[in-house]
Amino acid sequence: MGALETLRTLNEKGIKTRHPIEMAIWSNEEGGTVGSTAFAGMLAPDALEQIYYGVSLRDGLKIIGGDAERLGETARQPGSTHAYLELHIEQGGILDKAGTPVGVAKGIVSIDRYNVVVEGFANHAGTTPKPGRRNALIAAARLVEAVNEVDTREPGSQVGTLGQLTVFPNAPNVIPGRVEMTVELRDLSEAKVAVLGEAVKARGREIAVATDTKMTFQRAEHILPALADPAIQALVESAAKSSGLAFMHLPSGAGHDAQLLAKLGPMGMIFVPSIAGISHSPKELSTWSDCANGANVLLAIVLAVDRD
Amino acid sequence: MGALETLRTLNEKGIKTRHPIEMAIWSNEEGGTVGSTAFAGMLAPDALEQIYYGVSLRDGLKIIGGDAERLGETARQPGSTHAYLELHIEQGGILDKAGTPVGVAKGIVSIDRYNVVVEGFANHAGTTPKPGRRNALIAAARLVEAVNEVDTREPGSQVGTLGQLTVFPNAPNVIPGRVEMTVELRDLSEAKVAVLGEAVKARGREIAVATDTKMTFQRAEHILPALADPAIQALVESAAKSSGLAFMHLPSGAGHDAQLLAKLGPMGMIFVPSIAGISHSPKELSTWSDCANGANVLLAIVLAVDRD
Repeated sequence: MGALETLRTLNEKGIKTRHPIEMAIWSNEEGGTVGSTAFAGMLAPDALEQIYYGVSLRDGLKIIGGDAERLGETARQPGSTHAYLELHIEQGGILDKAGTPVGVAKGIVSIDRYNVVVEGFANHAGTTPKPGRRNALIAAARLVEAVNEVDTREPGSQVGTLGQLTVFPNAPNVIPGRVEMTVELRDLSEAKVAVLGEAVKARGREIAVATDTKMTFQRAEHILPALADPAIQALVESAAKSSGLAFMHLPSGAGHDAQLLAKLGPMGMIFVPSIAGISHSPKELSTWSDCANGANVLLAIVLAVDRD
Repeated sequence: MGALETLRTLNEKGIKTRHPIEMAIWSNEEGGTVGSTAFAGMLAPDALEQIYYGVSLRDGLKIIGGDAERLGETARQPGSTHAYLELHIEQGGILDKAGTPVGVAKGIVSIDRYNVVVEGFANHAGTTPKPGRRNALIAAARLVEAVNEVDTREPGSQVGTLGQLTVFPNAPNVIPGRVEMTVELRDLSEAKVAVLGEAVKARGREIAVATDTKMTFQRAEHILPALADPAIQALVESAAKSSGLAFMHLPSGAGHDAQLLAKLGPMGMIFVPSIAGISHSPKELSTWSDCANGANVLLAIVLAVDRD
């Protein structure tokens, strides 16, 4: 909406930019980045056959009236964009808590996701003496703590989350024999994410020995960071200063279409506060004045980038 | 099978007992104790309407050719049995590990089962800073450890198991907002089970404060212990001694039909080794000589009890 307001304002004022401006509405951003991935020419060869919520991408595009065969035609070449700018709510509640109206994105974090499997031995909860138990859930519980500790050992905005955990056979009277879980680690530095992963795996090895279980880690996802262009970050700062708006630099812990567009040319993001950082929810709310501030900063940067 | 062999031997030898002997094959003992509960006259008024694996008991009885309306007729009166004897494999691997052929059951444990719910706040795993997180899974993981610790603090055969744990929304990139789990505590002493439950709840209260979550405990099951008749225990001892078989006293951590029959009159159980304590599995195996030992002890007790 901020982008639309920017274009309307340019038209109302009769301002003609040197560079052509395009506005993209990435359909279903929260469900994935198919559109921006295609635009960046990064779709996997088998992308159309991949299944999302039980439907192939090919069939899904058909359902919404698209032409799957022409998806590849959306691809642009690297170097074909002068700049990509995205205005977005800040989803961690950091701006809202600080009362700061403008966030300058340093970039979008790198993500490593591990699938972790713990194998113990399922057995009768009433008859099996404690010393002989090989309880996969006790090992898993210790890994939950390990992930919580490993990312708070040093300052920084790195986060680790163990968000998915499934117990087998998952019955009140059976000692858990198997647990499957995911560990997700995020930071702007790919190297730091790798170090955190090694630290979690090392703790996993100790836990497996202590609990007489087997713990295996498989890296299932490895997303590279996308850094915001320093020159655009400086322009966001200047635009905020000119409007008398306080600002802060911060990484984006969430993924955005901007990380794909960063493959084509310089990228920058402006954040505005979302109350309590709520997103992906009907309760998501940003005040009108915060939205207006964001649109004004975006307009200023569009003009500044165009002047370069 | 040991009971059948005992009856055959009595017939082969032409031995007529003073008391009538009945042999019961409790259908689907592992699926529940419907048969023995009905026999003990302990069925709940709405028992036929209760659902097991998607089928009401009424319909289930029909499926296997039973007459649900006549289920109540199976009930016997308290005092109507002179003794109830049950020969069973020992499911904890204790006899097998010790190389002891005969187990004298002290009784069947009391069980308290709690349904535990942890409420935190589900939020984006990438954007939510660590200090503001209210992670229900971290609280749950600490309760897993608490249950593991609380029952090993003092000697005894009490066991605690956290066997069922379900995470919501259970996605790799969402901080767990809710966890539902079960805590099951078992011991021959009902009072000890209650004390263990209080200890776990106290730890839960501390964990909830430390993790800024809400943790609620609801006692969902309360099974009283069923103690084996001391006179029958002494008879099992004597029978083992007469046959030159080593024996040990031990509680049954698993439930058995015997706990219902104990409502009608004196009850006793004889255990024989199961290799590695495996039960409820195609891998369950007891040697023929262990089976024969058990049947011989059972025969001796039947005769001894009849002489009383």
